[in-house]
Amino acid sequence: MDETSEKFISGKIVRGESPLNLEMPFEKLEAFLTPTESFYVRTHFPIPAIDRDAWWLRVEGEVEKPFAINYEQLLEFESITVPVTLECAGNSRNFLEPKVKGVQWGLGAVGTAEWTGVPLSILLDRAGVEANASEVILEGTDGGMLDDPKSPPGKLRFARSVPLKKARHDVLLAYKMNGSELPPEHGFPVRAIVPGWYAMASIKWLQRIIVTDEPFTGYYQTIDYAYWNRRAEVAELTPLTEMQIKAEIAKPAEGETVPANSSVRVHGAAWTSDGEITKVELSTDGGSTWNETNLLSEPKPNAWRLWEFNWQTPRTPGTQTLIARATDSLGRTQPVLHDADRGTYMINHLLPIQVEVC
Amino acid sequence: MDETSEKFISGKIVRGESPLNLEMPFEKLEAFLTPTESFYVRTHFPIPAIDRDAWWLRVEGEVEKPFAINYEQLLEFESITVPVTLECAGNSRNFLEPKVKGVQWGLGAVGTAEWTGVPLSILLDRAGVEANASEVILEGTDGGMLDDPKSPPGKLRFARSVPLKKARHDVLLAYKMNGSELPPEHGFPVRAIVPGWYAMASIKWLQRIIVTDEPFTGYYQTIDYAYWNRRAEVAELTPLTEMQIKAEIAKPAEGETVPANSSVRVHGAAWTSDGEITKVELSTDGGSTWNETNLLSEPKPNAWRLWEFNWQTPRTPGTQTLIARATDSLGRTQPVLHDADRGTYMINHLLPIQVEVC
Repeated sequence: MDETSEKFISGKIVRGESPLNLEMPFEKLEAFLTPTESFYVRTHFPIPAIDRDAWWLRVEGEVEKPFAINYEQLLEFESITVPVTLECAGNSRNFLEPKVKGVQWGLGAVGTAEWTGVPLSILLDRAGVEANASEVILEGTDGGMLDDPKSPPGKLRFARSVPLKKARHDVLLAYKMNGSELPPEHGFPVRAIVPGWYAMASIKWLQRIIVTDEPFTGYYQTIDYAYWNRRAEVAELTPLTEMQIKAEIAKPAEGETVPANSSVRVHGAAWTSDGEITKVELSTDGGSTWNETNLLSEPKPNAWRLWEFNWQTPRTPGTQTLIARATDSLGRTQPVLHDADRGTYMINHLLPIQVEVC
Repeated sequence: MDETSEKFISGKIVRGESPLNLEMPFEKLEAFLTPTESFYVRTHFPIPAIDRDAWWLRVEGEVEKPFAINYEQLLEFESITVPVTLECAGNSRNFLEPKVKGVQWGLGAVGTAEWTGVPLSILLDRAGVEANASEVILEGTDGGMLDDPKSPPGKLRFARSVPLKKARHDVLLAYKMNGSELPPEHGFPVRAIVPGWYAMASIKWLQRIIVTDEPFTGYYQTIDYAYWNRRAEVAELTPLTEMQIKAEIAKPAEGETVPANSSVRVHGAAWTSDGEITKVELSTDGGSTWNETNLLSEPKPNAWRLWEFNWQTPRTPGTQTLIARATDSLGRTQPVLHDADRGTYMINHLLPIQVEVC
C-alpha cells in the first residue's frame, strides 16, 4: 500500500468510490466513542435516497399479524441507547498475504457509536411470532445488479438473517447515532444494530423484517460473507456471525518515527463478542516478550475497551515491531496466523506494526 | 458447436479430458437400458484407483454404533436390482444462450442402467441412527484442489447429502451396473444411487456415510450444484435435488437430412421424478401444433420412458423444427424457456431440433 497515493474524503481514507467505502485512519482513535464523521463507511450499492416521510418498515412472514409502520410510529415505541462496536468482517484485509480480492481495509473499518433505537423484540411481540419461527431476515433498501456470475439474476437487495433468539435478545432498530439522526451513509432513516456480530448483519436502510421457519440462504450469507467450517473433516459453508477477539494499535502507526530512549505512549482498542476484554498485552520486540497494558475504560458488553502502555524505547536507533494481543473473559485470545478457511474475512490474527526508533 | 471437430473415446463425445467427461451421442439411444460402454461419464477429479480388497466404507456421525465394512462384507447384505435414470444436472447446457461456463453437454449426459446394490436403510439400521439425525452425507474418494477462489482451501472431496427420509426410502449402495462390476469411471467399487435426483447426488467411489443433525452445506451443494429459489421475493441458495420433467429427441438428430413426403420414425426418451411420464407430444412445425406420441415401455419409477412417432414429412423440401414435450402424472410439463434463477443447471425447457427435409 503506497500511503502517499491515498485519497481522503472528510478525513477518511477512500477504499472505493462506487460503491463508497471509507476507512477511519485508525491513528485518529482518541476516545471510547468514535465521532460520526470519523466512523468508517461500508456500502455495497449506491446509498439509497430515502424520504423519511414516505418510509415504511414491514414486519411479515411467520407472524400472526403482519404490519407496516412509518418513522413517526417507530419513534413512539420505547427506545434504548447503547454503545456498540461495529467491525467490518473484512477489516484488516490488506494485512493478508498474498493479496486477496475485496476492499483493502487497513485497521480502521471498526468504530464504536452510541445507538438509539427500538428493541426488535418489541416489534416482534406486536406482530406475534408463530411457534415454528426460527430466524428473522432483515432486508435493506440498498440493491442493484452484481457482476458475480454466482449472484442471483436481476436486482439483488442486501439482506441477512439472525436467529430468532438473538433477534429477541439484543437487536436494535436504530434511528440515532451518537445522539443525532442517522446520516444517509449509515442507514438513514433506520438501521439494524446486531451487537457482537460483524457489521454486515447490521442492515442499513432497513425496509423489511421477515420472520421465517427455515435457515435463510440469501447471497450475503452464502456466496458472500461466509467461511468454511469443518465438521467431520468436511468443509461446510457457514455464515459469518460473531466478531472474533482482536486488539489493534492506533499509535504509533505503521512507519511512524519515535524518539530513542524515551517514554512513548502506545495505545489502541480491543474487542470481542459475548465475553469481555480482560487483558491486552503489547510486545515491542516482534513477539519475543509481552507486557500487560492498562485498560482505560470499564468493560461494556459489545463495545471495545481502550488500552495504553508507556513504552520505554531502546537507546539505539532501529526498526521495532509492535504487536498487541487481547484475551477475553472466556479465555480466548488471538491466533498468530490467519486461518485459510476464513478466506478474506474474520481477520483477527496478530497484526505487527513497524516503527522507526531514531 | 462444430460437430466435425468433436473427439470421441470409445464412441462417446469428449467434453473434457482432465477431468474426464464423456457424453453419449443421444442419437444412439436404442433401448430402455443404456449399455454401460455408452453411458455418459462425469468426473470432477482424476478417477481414483481403488484396490477393492483394501476398500472400506465407514458409517459414522449421529449413530449409536459407528462401523466400517469392506467389499466382501457389503456383498453379504440383501441386495436389490432396479433400473434408474441418471441425468447430469448440467445436461443440455450447450442449448443455453448466451453460452455459460461449465461442461458443454448436449443431449447425452443422461442414461438408464440397472443398478444392483444394498439399500442404504440396511446400513443405517445396523448403525442405529440417533433420534436427532436429519441428513446423511455421502462422501466419495475423489478429490483434489480447485481453482475456484470460492472453494475451501486445501484438498476437497466430492460429497453431498440427502435427507434422512430419502436415504431410508430408496438410496442404494450399488456395486453392479447392468449386471457387471462397476467400471472405474462409474464409481468402482461402490457408488450411491439416489433415484429421481440429478446425478451429482449419486456419489461415486463411496468411502464414508456421515449421519448428521444439521443441514449439510458442503461446496457441492452451495457454491456448486445449487440454484436460486425465491421466497418472499428474496433469492435463496438451494441445493439441486430432483430431476425436472424432460423429453429429448434421439432421432432424427440436429442437422440430419430426412426424405420429403415419407414416413420417418421420430423417437426419444422422457423422464421425471416422483410421478411418471403420462404423455409425450411432438411438434414438427416449431411448436405451432402438437401430436401425441406412442409411449413404448411401461412406466417404472425413477426411469425414463421411450417414445416414438411416425412423422409424415412435408412434400416440399426445407428446414423443419422438431420439439418434444413431456407431461407427468402430477400434471407437470416443461417450460418454454430456461429460468435464469437456475443458472447453468436444471435445463429442462423445450429443446428444438432442426432437420433438413429434401
